[in-house]
Amino acid sequence: MIGKKIPVLDKGFVRVLDYMGDDGAIVQAARVSYGKGTKSVSEDAALIRYLMRHMHTTPFEMCELKLHIKLPIFVARQWVRHRTANINEYSARYSVLEREFYVPAPRDVAQQSASNRQGRGGVAAPKLAESVRRRMVKDAEQAFDTYESLLDETKPTQGVSRELARIGLPLSTYTEWYWKIDLHNLFHFLRLRADEHAQLELRKYAIEILRIVEKWVPAAFDAFLEYQMYGGHLSRSAIRTISELARGKKISYAASGLSRREWDELVKMFSLESRSG
Amino acid sequence: MIGKKIPVLDKGFVRVLDYMGDDGAIVQAARVSYGKGTKSVSEDAALIRYLMRHMHTTPFEMCELKLHIKLPIFVARQWVRHRTANINEYSARYSVLEREFYVPAPRDVAQQSASNRQGRGGVAAPKLAESVRRRMVKDAEQAFDTYESLLDETKPTQGVSRELARIGLPLSTYTEWYWKIDLHNLFHFLRLRADEHAQLELRKYAIEILRIVEKWVPAAFDAFLEYQMYGGHLSRSAIRTISELARGKKISYAASGLSRREWDELVKMFSLESRSG
Amino acid sequence: MIGKKIPVLDKGFVRVLDYMGDDGAIVQAARVSYGKGTKSVSEDAALIRYLMRHMHTTPFEMCELKLHIKLPIFVARQWVRHRTANINEYSARYSVLEREFYVPAPRDVAQQSASNRQGRGGVAAPKLAESVRRRMVKDAEQAFDTYESLLDETKPTQGVSRELARIGLPLSTYTEWYWKIDLHNLFHFLRLRADEHAQLELRKYAIEILRIVEKWVPAAFDAFLEYQMYGGHLSRSAIRTISELARGKKISYAASGLSRREWDELVKMFSLESRSG
Amino acid sequence: MIGKKIPVLDKGFVRVLDYMGDDGAIVQAARVSYGKGTKSVSEDAALIRYLMRHMHTTPFEMCELKLHIKLPIFVARQWVRHRTANINEYSARYSVLEREFYVPAPRDVAQQSASNRQGRGGVAAPKLAESVRRRMVKDAEQAFDTYESLLDETKPTQGVSRELARIGLPLSTYTEWYWKIDLHNLFHFLRLRADEHAQLELRKYAIEILRIVEKWVPAAFDAFLEYQMYGGHLSRSAIRTISELARGKKISYAASGLSRREWDELVKMFSLESRSG
Repeated sequence: MIGKKIPVLDKGFVRVLDYMGDDGAIVQAARVSYGKGTKSVSEDAALIRYLMRHMHTTPFEMCELKLHIKLPIFVARQWVRHRTANINEYSARYSVLEREFYVPAPRDVAQQSASNRQGRGGVAAPKLAESVRRRMVKDAEQAFDTYESLLDETKPTQGVSRELARIGLPLSTYTEWYWKIDLHNLFHFLRLRADEHAQLELRKYAIEILRIVEKWVPAAFDAFLEYQMYGGHLSRSAIRTISELARGKKISYAASGLSRREWDELVKMFSLESRSG
Repeated sequence: MIGKKIPVLDKGFVRVLDYMGDDGAIVQAARVSYGKGTKSVSEDAALIRYLMRHMHTTPFEMCELKLHIKLPIFVARQWVRHRTANINEYSARYSVLEREFYVPAPRDVAQQSASNRQGRGGVAAPKLAESVRRRMVKDAEQAFDTYESLLDETKPTQGVSRELARIGLPLSTYTEWYWKIDLHNLFHFLRLRADEHAQLELRKYAIEILRIVEKWVPAAFDAFLEYQMYGGHLSRSAIRTISELARGKKISYAASGLSRREWDELVKMFSLESRSG
Repeated sequence: MIGKKIPVLDKGFVRVLDYMGDDGAIVQAARVSYGKGTKSVSEDAALIRYLMRHMHTTPFEMCELKLHIKLPIFVARQWVRHRTANINEYSARYSVLEREFYVPAPRDVAQQSASNRQGRGGVAAPKLAESVRRRMVKDAEQAFDTYESLLDETKPTQGVSRELARIGLPLSTYTEWYWKIDLHNLFHFLRLRADEHAQLELRKYAIEILRIVEKWVPAAFDAFLEYQMYGGHLSRSAIRTISELARGKKISYAASGLSRREWDELVKMFSLESRSG
Repeated sequence: MIGKKIPVLDKGFVRVLDYMGDDGAIVQAARVSYGKGTKSVSEDAALIRYLMRHMHTTPFEMCELKLHIKLPIFVARQWVRHRTANINEYSARYSVLEREFYVPAPRDVAQQSASNRQGRGGVAAPKLAESVRRRMVKDAEQAFDTYESLLDETKPTQGVSRELARIGLPLSTYTEWYWKIDLHNLFHFLRLRADEHAQLELRKYAIEILRIVEKWVPAAFDAFLEYQMYGGHLSRSAIRTISELARGKKISYAASGLSRREWDELVKMFSLESRSG
C-alpha cells in the first residue's frame, strides 16, 4: 500500500508514506485503559465497535497515517481547517511552482444550487461546461505566463522575489504536502469531508482516503461506517416524534415542532414519505 | 454572575472569573463566515440552532469562559483529560496544601454496579455509608498528620521538601485551579461529564457549570439541550430497524442485528417497551 | 481600542473585536498556581518578567484577543499555520467575493534575495515596480471579470456555482476573518511573524498587532520584548565561544566549531566585528 | 528496542511500543517543504541542525513515539500538563488497582531547598530518610488495606464501588498508560522535564526517554542537545552586557540592569566568576 500514487482530480494524488498501528493497536490501547474490565468483550472487532459507539476516542488516537498529497490550493484551504494534524507544505517562497492548475472535468462543472446556498446544483450543459473550462485555462495560463516572466532572472529588469511573484497565481494552482493525522481525527475529517455537503473536489480526496483506511484498519472502518458515516443524529424533538410514531400515533410536520428542514431530514432518514406527508 | 462561589461537594466550589462573548458574538462570527449567505436566517436563535445542528462549531469557539474551581484531585485527574482548555493549578511544590479532603455524603456512598463496570449501583445502607466515611476520614487525617509532620521545619531532623512530602496525601485531597475554555469545547465537556455515566463527583461540577452556561448564553444553551444533551445518535442498523417499524413491520431484537445493549438503548430512547419485547 | 479599523496594506485592516484579561489577570493566574510561593515577588511587573523568563506560559494563556482582519489569501495561508487559534472566515462557497485584491506599493516590490532563499533583496527600480504592479492589476482584473461573468445568473447559460467560479481568482484576493487567540500563542505568532524573515505582507499585520498588545497588556509586552523579541538564543558551541572570549582568549571562526552562518549571527548579536574577523 | 521494560524508580518502567519515522523522515518532510530550496544543504545531519536552529518545527512533527509507562500518580499529574500527546490510562473505575506505591530511595529523600521554592535541597540524613520512608510505607499500606476492604464483595456490608473506594489511595500509587507524542512535542517535554528544575521523579523518566531518542533519531538528538538542551537564552539586557564585555569594558551587576538571579545565571552560563564579582 505504501508509495503508490493514487490519482485524484486531473493532476492530484494521494500517496501513503507511512502508518503506525492497526486494529490490534486500538484494542491493545483499550485494554490498558480498561484492564481486566475488558474481559467480557472477548472479540476485538466487538471491542472496537463498543469503543466507537461510546465515543471512547483515545484508543483510535494511537494510530497514525502519513500521506503525501498533491492538491489545488482552494482544496488545501478547506483541508487545513482541520487543525489537529501535522503538515509540511511545499513553499512557494523557497522554490518555484510548476505550471499546474486544476481544471474541472466537464461533468463536474455545475451551476449554483437553488436550494443549498453553499453547493452545486445540476451539471452544466456541455456547451457551458466547455466554455467555463476554456476560460479557466486561458486565465490560468495568463497568470502563469506573468509568474514565469516576473521570475525570469535573465532579464535585468526582472527577477522579482518568488514570494511576491506568486501572488497573482490562481487558487486552482496545485501545491503538495505531507499530512499526518491520528485515526480519531482522520475519522472526523472523513465524516465531514466525504459527506455530500463537502465541496466535490475535497470529497474526491476523502473518498480515496476512505479506501486506504478500509485496507489499513478494516474493523475500525466498519465501526466508523456503522456508527458515524451512515449513522444519524436525532434532536430531542425528533426523538419525541419517532416515539409517538412507535406508539402508533399519527405524526405530522405541523405537530412535530421541527423546522421544515429537520422534518425533511427525518422523513428521509427513516423513509417515512408514504405515510406522513 | 462573576465572583460568587457556588458550592459543590463538601468543600469545593465553582466561581466565574470572567467570560468573553455571548449569544450575539456567536451570531456575529457566523455572519462573517456566511456573509450575505445568512440573510435568510433572520432570527439569531434560529441561526444558533442551525449552527449547532450542522456541527458548524467554529462560531461557538468565539466565546470563552474562565472559572475558578476547587475540586478533589481524583476529579481533577478526569477533568484534565479534556485537553483543549487552559489551566493554572495550585502547585504543591511551591506551596503547602491545606488540610482539606473530600468525604462523600452518606447518600453518595454506593456499592459497585453489577451491570455497569465503571459505575455505582444502589446507595449503600446507612450503616455501611457511615463506616466508609469514618474510615476515609481516619486514613486521610493520618496522611495529613504525616504530611504536616514531614514539613515541620522546627524539628531539625525534618523539613522534608514539599514536593516529596505530599506524595502520601490521598486522591481525595482538594486542589484549586483556574480553568479557561471556549464554548464549543465546554459543550463537549458538559455532554460527557453531565451524563449519567460520568463519575458522580465530576458530574456535580458539570451540572453547576450547565446552570452558568444557561444564564450566560441562553440561546446556545437551548440548542445544546435540543441537539446534543438530549439528542440521540443512531447507528446504521438502528436507523434500518426504526424504518421498518415506521413501515408498520414488527421489529425484534433477534432480527435487528443490534447488540443486546444497543437494542436496550433503542427501546429506552423511543419508549418502545410495551410493543417490542 | 475596540472597533476601530487599523489599515494594513492597500485594502486590509485589523480591528479589535473583544479581549479578555489584562496584565492583572496574568498575575492573578500565576498567584493561584504558586499560592503563598509568590509572596516574595512583590510587584506585578516583576512577576510577569519572571514568568516570561522561565517559560511559565500558562498564566499568559488566561488572556484572549479577538480580532477582525481583512487580508490577502496568500497571507491567510501563512497565518493559518498557527493552529492554536480560532477562526471564522468569510466563505466563498456561501457568498460572493468582492472585487478586491492586493497590489504591492512600489516600495514593496523587490527582487529575489541572493543570500536568502525565501526572502526579498533590494527594492526594485521604479520602472520595474510599476511594470510589475501593472501586470498584477491586469491579470487580477481579468480573473475577476471571468468570476463575475461565470456567476451571472441573468444569462441562461451561466450561473456557475460560487464554489467553482472562485477557483480562478488570484492568491492576492482579499478575504476576511475573525481570529481569536490566547496571549501565549499570540506572542509565539508575533515573534515569528514580526521578524525580518517573515514575508513582508504578513509582517505588516504582525506589527500592527504588536501595537495593540502594547496598549492592552503593557507589562507583558515589555517582558516579551526583553526576553523574546529582542532576546537571543545561543547554541552550546556559541556559549563555549563566548566563554573563551570572556576569559580573554582570542576567538575565531575557524576554532569556534560554528557554521559560517552561526558565526555571522554571533558576531552580529554581540557587535563583535572589530576584533574577531 | 521495542518491548523491553526499562526500569525507572522503584516499581515503574518505560517501554517502547512503536515508533514512526526516523532521521530520514525528518529530512524527507523538510525537502517537500523547501523543494529545490534545500539543494544547498547537501547533508542530512546539517539539514536537521538547520531546522532545529531556525525553529522549523514541522518536519520533527512527522515522527511519533509510542511508549508504555508505569508511573506514580503525582508524576502522572505533572506529565499530563503536556497536552499535545495521546494517552490511554489504566482506569481505576473499570478495574482494581494493584497494591503498588512509590517509596523514594534513601538518597532521594531531601529537605526543602532554602533557595528554590519548588525544589529539594541537600539529601536528608540517613536517619531522617529512613524515618520518612517508614512513615510513607505505613500510611500507604493502611490506605491499601482500607481500599481492599471496601472492595471486598464477600462481606455483605461492603463491595463499595471501585470509583469511590480508590479516592483514599495516596498520590504515590502507581498507574500505567500508553503515551504517544510527536518528536517536536517530545523535545519540548524533554527540555523542560530532563532539566534540573523538574521534580526528580519525573526527571528520571525523562532521562530514560532521552536515551531512547538518542538511539531512535541520533541526528535530531544531537541537534536537540546543541541548540536546546545545552543551549541558552539571553535577554536583551544580557546581550547588551555581553557586548560590552566583548568590547573590553568592565561589566558589573550594578550596571547591567539585570536582576540578581539573571546576573547569577549569566555568570554561570559563561563561567564569568573570576573576573566580574
